[in-house]
Amino acid sequence: MTTAQKPTKRGKMVNGFDPANTENLDPRARAFVERRARLLGPAYRLFYSNPVEFSRANGVFLYDSDGNEYLDAYNNVVSVGHCHPHVNAAIAKQMEVMCTHTRYMQDGILDFAETLLDTFETEIGHVMFTCTGSEANDLALRMAKHHTGNQGIIVTSEAYHGNSELTAGFSPSMGENSPLGTWVRLVPAPDTYRVETQNMGEWLAARVSEQIHDLHRRGQGLAAFVADSLFTSDGIFPQDPGVLKPALDLVRDAGGLFVADEVQCGFARTGTHMWGYQHHDVVPDIVSLGKPMGNGYPVAGIAVRPEVAERFGHDTRYFNTFGGNTVAMAAAKATLEVIQDENLQENCDHVGRIMLDGLRDIATRHESIGDVRGTGLYMGVEMVQDRATKTPDSRSALSLVNELREQRILISATSFNANVLKIRPHLTFDKGHADRFLTGFEKALKAVS
Amino acid sequence: MTTAQKPTKRGKMVNGFDPANTENLDPRARAFVERRARLLGPAYRLFYSNPVEFSRANGVFLYDSDGNEYLDAYNNVVSVGHCHPHVNAAIAKQMEVMCTHTRYMQDGILDFAETLLDTFETEIGHVMFTCTGSEANDLALRMAKHHTGNQGIIVTSEAYHGNSELTAGFSPSMGENSPLGTWVRLVPAPDTYRVETQNMGEWLAARVSEQIHDLHRRGQGLAAFVADSLFTSDGIFPQDPGVLKPALDLVRDAGGLFVADEVQCGFARTGTHMWGYQHHDVVPDIVSLGKPMGNGYPVAGIAVRPEVAERFGHDTRYFNTFGGNTVAMAAAKATLEVIQDENLQENCDHVGRIMLDGLRDIATRHESIGDVRGTGLYMGVEMVQDRATKTPDSRSALSLVNELREQRILISATSFNANVLKIRPHLTFDKGHADRFLTGFEKALKAVS
Repeated sequence: MTTAQKPTKRGKMVNGFDPANTENLDPRARAFVERRARLLGPAYRLFYSNPVEFSRANGVFLYDSDGNEYLDAYNNVVSVGHCHPHVNAAIAKQMEVMCTHTRYMQDGILDFAETLLDTFETEIGHVMFTCTGSEANDLALRMAKHHTGNQGIIVTSEAYHGNSELTAGFSPSMGENSPLGTWVRLVPAPDTYRVETQNMGEWLAARVSEQIHDLHRRGQGLAAFVADSLFTSDGIFPQDPGVLKPALDLVRDAGGLFVADEVQCGFARTGTHMWGYQHHDVVPDIVSLGKPMGNGYPVAGIAVRPEVAERFGHDTRYFNTFGGNTVAMAAAKATLEVIQDENLQENCDHVGRIMLDGLRDIATRHESIGDVRGTGLYMGVEMVQDRATKTPDSRSALSLVNELREQRILISATSFNANVLKIRPHLTFDKGHADRFLTGFEKALKAVS
Repeated sequence: MTTAQKPTKRGKMVNGFDPANTENLDPRARAFVERRARLLGPAYRLFYSNPVEFSRANGVFLYDSDGNEYLDAYNNVVSVGHCHPHVNAAIAKQMEVMCTHTRYMQDGILDFAETLLDTFETEIGHVMFTCTGSEANDLALRMAKHHTGNQGIIVTSEAYHGNSELTAGFSPSMGENSPLGTWVRLVPAPDTYRVETQNMGEWLAARVSEQIHDLHRRGQGLAAFVADSLFTSDGIFPQDPGVLKPALDLVRDAGGLFVADEVQCGFARTGTHMWGYQHHDVVPDIVSLGKPMGNGYPVAGIAVRPEVAERFGHDTRYFNTFGGNTVAMAAAKATLEVIQDENLQENCDHVGRIMLDGLRDIATRHESIGDVRGTGLYMGVEMVQDRATKTPDSRSALSLVNELREQRILISATSFNANVLKIRPHLTFDKGHADRFLTGFEKALKAVS
């Protein structure tokens, strides 16, 4: 087996298991980890310094093989709850009828496309379906480059947009050994905790402007500014309305498009809106969709202004074998029905406020918490060594993630220093779950301090 | 709606519906086509000049809304048969238990990985899971470039390897408006019908050698030679054993890898072997897997020599959210069980010979057939204007595909001129289905001649 991996000091995987340290594992876990490395190789990383094995799941809970219950506060895939009966029934039913691609006429894909498009502004008139968020962003940027004839892409400095060659090329959070494209320019995220400005919109626009000029100077031009409107990989920064608009005006003046990456914050999670960008009074040119779209079924896609899709659609013969298949459409339709029928957007808003209030209350008693922020059921808690200097405390964040796992509560960490706890529970979290989380969270804080 | 699309004169979509020609459609179909263009845009193309709507499927058959039965001789996705009960039951059962990603410990993914690796040579020691064949090829080539430090990729002149920016960049069959990467070099496929040589292995090696030299001359180096060992997009050319080996020796001498794209011809379809490359007494560095892997569930992946995966795995933090999830593994495991338990590889060999013999017999009565070739249940019938000149007859191939659709038999066409009928039925085709196909095929030949 492979034991050469060095734990990184930064980035998304700081809370992962270090395969070089198997000595603390029990024999069964050690045998598992060795077998896993032998069969899957070094790319397959596990969460937690003490990896956990789950054997079943239901609602907001996962269960290990001894039947212990874990509160899942980190699930943006089966986001309407593990094993949701409505979604599972829809998938099973369609599998019994027919699973086929989009080269034949079917009403199902059109009915769902219409329902999905109803959640967007009228300018956004087409949807196209892929299987993963990476495929969605890859398609979005191929389209943006084809439409504009330009090459340049501007993203925030710790963004993550996918695992294909193109999308990894504009995912700086992938770290030191993953090369960025020569056509990529970075801007700092509008960090509401550290940036001192009276006008964050102008602050961001000034930085975007610099990069647009550099792209023009190098003859690359601007194809797109791509942003997750909650800046989740940068550290989770909800913004006041209007913060994006000045930057986007410059982007469009430069002939570029705005691609809203909603893979993380779309589908009602931010509480007050279905889509994260809708907090900002802007209409994107392309919206990419992914993770929670089929409650675990691999379905993703883009929503796009028709004029942007036109030339790409004619020129490229794009086809995605599994994308938009009949079962994928049944899964996505059922998931959206659950979000709408169970009022999960309102639930995110309501329970999110309870959780934010609870976290802010806890912060009054714990100096190690520098900042609490979030919207709906997407929250960040920034750990610092000192509130005055705001020095990031990666070690404390790592300890908390692992301590919470021992208390059977699942979260992770994000940002350049991985010192921002990433709390992202199911959209179906209720007040009882929130209370259980908050009690466990404060207990873990005490345990690690 | 969009009506600006011009039908292409060549390539994969020659048998597609032309949205500029809606006047021959019945009112329901016309309304459908218009609604589809309005919601999905111009990239969504339909098969056949008279598009067909299906409402259910079972085994090797699809059914339209009037209950008419269509023989599906073109399905490489639900390849063990539409709605196979064993696969559907496995998916439904796992969905009830748990759907989760690979960051937690699970035996399921390891058990399936072990079973899958048993079908490869011992040099191939790791598997990694994605959702689509495009993702698999994108990952394979990212890894090949990372491992070798080189940029160049050699493919055959009408190859198709995927729809991401990277894979579309080495998919010349995407046509005139889809740019190839500057790091791509093309070689002609070893066309057993037109190339006149006593030694196809040396013939191919000479062409690969030229491109290796050009890549070195431009300072790009060779990362990989990528080939579908049946050259399905080039026109379906089964080869004598040993044809690939001289070229691969050169590839490896140049520091490049061999990536076997088994998305089309893998999983027993070629009859005598589980994997297409195994006809050739070579062991690839990376094997990419896709379409039929989960009988419709979006699951794909790569199998790879451990030394090739090593550095990429450590350096890049590659993660695929849906790839290798518990339900995907249940689907893939059940599909492989069906292939093995129902002896489908032997069935492909047996029924494939019946179909090839039948097609060759038909060819004795029809001058328009220039060549019949294939292995297992992957067959090509090349239509020509004249057997002496071998001039491709695209029009005749197109007419046949559409005439067969009217007779409720589904196939398509491939190659640069789209004059090679692509016959690729379910692995479960039996002698009765083969006879029904052959009878319909000759009837269609008579109807269009």
